[in-house]
Amino acid sequence: MIVDHARRLTAAERLLATEDLAALVVAPSPDLAYLVGYDPMPLERPTLLALVPGESPRLLVPTLERPLALDAPGAPELEIVGWRDGQDPYAVLAGWLPPGSRVALGDRIWGVHVLALQRAAPTVMWTSARPVVGTLRARKDPAELDALRRAGAAADAALEELLATAIAGRRELDVGADLARLLVEYGHERADFTIVASGPNAASPHHEPTERVIAAGDALVLDFGGVLDGYCSDTTRTFAIGEPSAELTRVHAVVHEAQAAARASVRPGVEIQEVDRAARAVIEAAGDGERFFHRTGHGIGLEVHEPPYAAEGDTTVLEPGMTFSVEPGIYMDGQLGVRIEDIVAVTDDGVEALNRSPRDLRIID
Amino acid sequence: MIVDHARRLTAAERLLATEDLAALVVAPSPDLAYLVGYDPMPLERPTLLALVPGESPRLLVPTLERPLALDAPGAPELEIVGWRDGQDPYAVLAGWLPPGSRVALGDRIWGVHVLALQRAAPTVMWTSARPVVGTLRARKDPAELDALRRAGAAADAALEELLATAIAGRRELDVGADLARLLVEYGHERADFTIVASGPNAASPHHEPTERVIAAGDALVLDFGGVLDGYCSDTTRTFAIGEPSAELTRVHAVVHEAQAAARASVRPGVEIQEVDRAARAVIEAAGDGERFFHRTGHGIGLEVHEPPYAAEGDTTVLEPGMTFSVEPGIYMDGQLGVRIEDIVAVTDDGVEALNRSPRDLRIID
Repeated sequence: MIVDHARRLTAAERLLATEDLAALVVAPSPDLAYLVGYDPMPLERPTLLALVPGESPRLLVPTLERPLALDAPGAPELEIVGWRDGQDPYAVLAGWLPPGSRVALGDRIWGVHVLALQRAAPTVMWTSARPVVGTLRARKDPAELDALRRAGAAADAALEELLATAIAGRRELDVGADLARLLVEYGHERADFTIVASGPNAASPHHEPTERVIAAGDALVLDFGGVLDGYCSDTTRTFAIGEPSAELTRVHAVVHEAQAAARASVRPGVEIQEVDRAARAVIEAAGDGERFFHRTGHGIGLEVHEPPYAAEGDTTVLEPGMTFSVEPGIYMDGQLGVRIEDIVAVTDDGVEALNRSPRDLRIID
Repeated sequence: MIVDHARRLTAAERLLATEDLAALVVAPSPDLAYLVGYDPMPLERPTLLALVPGESPRLLVPTLERPLALDAPGAPELEIVGWRDGQDPYAVLAGWLPPGSRVALGDRIWGVHVLALQRAAPTVMWTSARPVVGTLRARKDPAELDALRRAGAAADAALEELLATAIAGRRELDVGADLARLLVEYGHERADFTIVASGPNAASPHHEPTERVIAAGDALVLDFGGVLDGYCSDTTRTFAIGEPSAELTRVHAVVHEAQAAARASVRPGVEIQEVDRAARAVIEAAGDGERFFHRTGHGIGLEVHEPPYAAEGDTTVLEPGMTFSVEPGIYMDGQLGVRIEDIVAVTDDGVEALNRSPRDLRIID
């Protein structure tokens, strides 16, 4: 993917001004990868990007990683400053920040670096960089949308191939390993998570696969994703192993309707919390409100969870190019769980689903 | 590995008292895994352990991850408190902290959570948890030492098998992929990094493998590691591809002597900065001081880099059970680099090397 890092840095500068912020400080994270194409492992030796409007962006790096930073796609836009073991990198960074100013701090910087920066720049007021970098990253450009579309299609294809073999009689762990392998076979660089939650385990939304053998009568939740060209997939479908119980049939129909209602509510100009409300209204009307105890969705892109959030209180106004999950669920402790999740993209006049697998209650072996 | 989490929590409480700290707050990280055996993915929804001496430890988790937390090995020691999307978890956590007190914060908690906690508990003084959790984790128990020993032996075995095939004529990338595969074949759960740095690339300590074809006359630095039973390996050796240049022979001899001197300096009662001084003295005496621009080593365990650090200024006094890397290097821009690294453990009266591969300049094809 060809990225115009100069344009992204300029856009960030402009948002800093809008938000009345004097600078942006970002550590290794998807924020840094987005802005300058540099994505080292976060470590105890700080690597810090400082963007002060009107000055050239500076990247402070441990000297021993300087050659790596110089190779980053965004390096031509940066002044790259090395610091050696034994020097105080926080004092160097603090020297670049206007005293007494408000500075935006990337969400994923480690606490040890935050506390050290606060000591080194005691007059600075630190605030989350989400209104700057989160806002930029939320609006995907055509190349990013294409990557997300291909990630969704690869996840759909992996699921269909998984279902070509009988699931009943196998352990959750083994089904999860197969699904992870298929995600990679269909084009993901790596699988990130494969939730395989059967029977009572389906009531745990973030269940990790166990040795439980999947059996007839189970509800089966598959929630899986990986990374393709740097962008994430995230899909959930719920199945009946053999003939479904009346309760599973009922609950699935409610979630199915809630998910469709939420997707249908997506269009430019709507606050993303309305998407949550659309799903929740259906589930509450069915009397299952207490059993839907998580938000309806999360933004997705370089991170599997990123702003904005389809949750009460997130007033982000949807714009074309925003991508997020729509994933209501109902969970009945000790019994079953149902969740249906697609990634959707806001279009010029509505919504595009990036997942196409059937959403109705499929009965599988 | 059987772990006594109650003992670890009690030890942490005791250190809090010693350090005049009113509480410890830890997010998903190796610190949390160490203390309570719970190791979820760090996310935007906070999961936070709060340890207040005299009260039972509390783990605040997103409700949808409560079943996972209840399955953690340390769960019987914890009061597990769920918070739902829409609630304010930071206010809940802040309510558990004595106002106006000093509270230790785990090093890896994300900045977005730090800023939110600081807002929710404005009278608390936050400080790094390193003197508490870092100190505990630095002293490995026999089971941890055994895991580190096996990780070191597996890394040694992977290296020897890699060298059984000719290296010259192959791309760095392919050698790196082979080494990663061999780390897993010899028992690692996963490979974490495989630096394959040949010729001028060897001058970049954290080089990432490229398409460069390794050729006769190159110096070749292999720096590689993974995770075995949760504990990390980290080994570096430098080779000559074919007949070495006079400069490579000279520089390797200096680093070899420096590394031996540093290992020989390790024993209980010595400050870890003395290990750095021992290596640096040899390299400075050879006139290469400016070309050794990083610390001599880092603690290792659940993390590949963790306290203490073999660096000027780290006055940690070595105790039996401490484990760290000893890895001096010399780098000549555009030409070559040499680094030799072992993991060592402090014993009752000296030092044990957890890597046994030959350290002299091996000439390979």
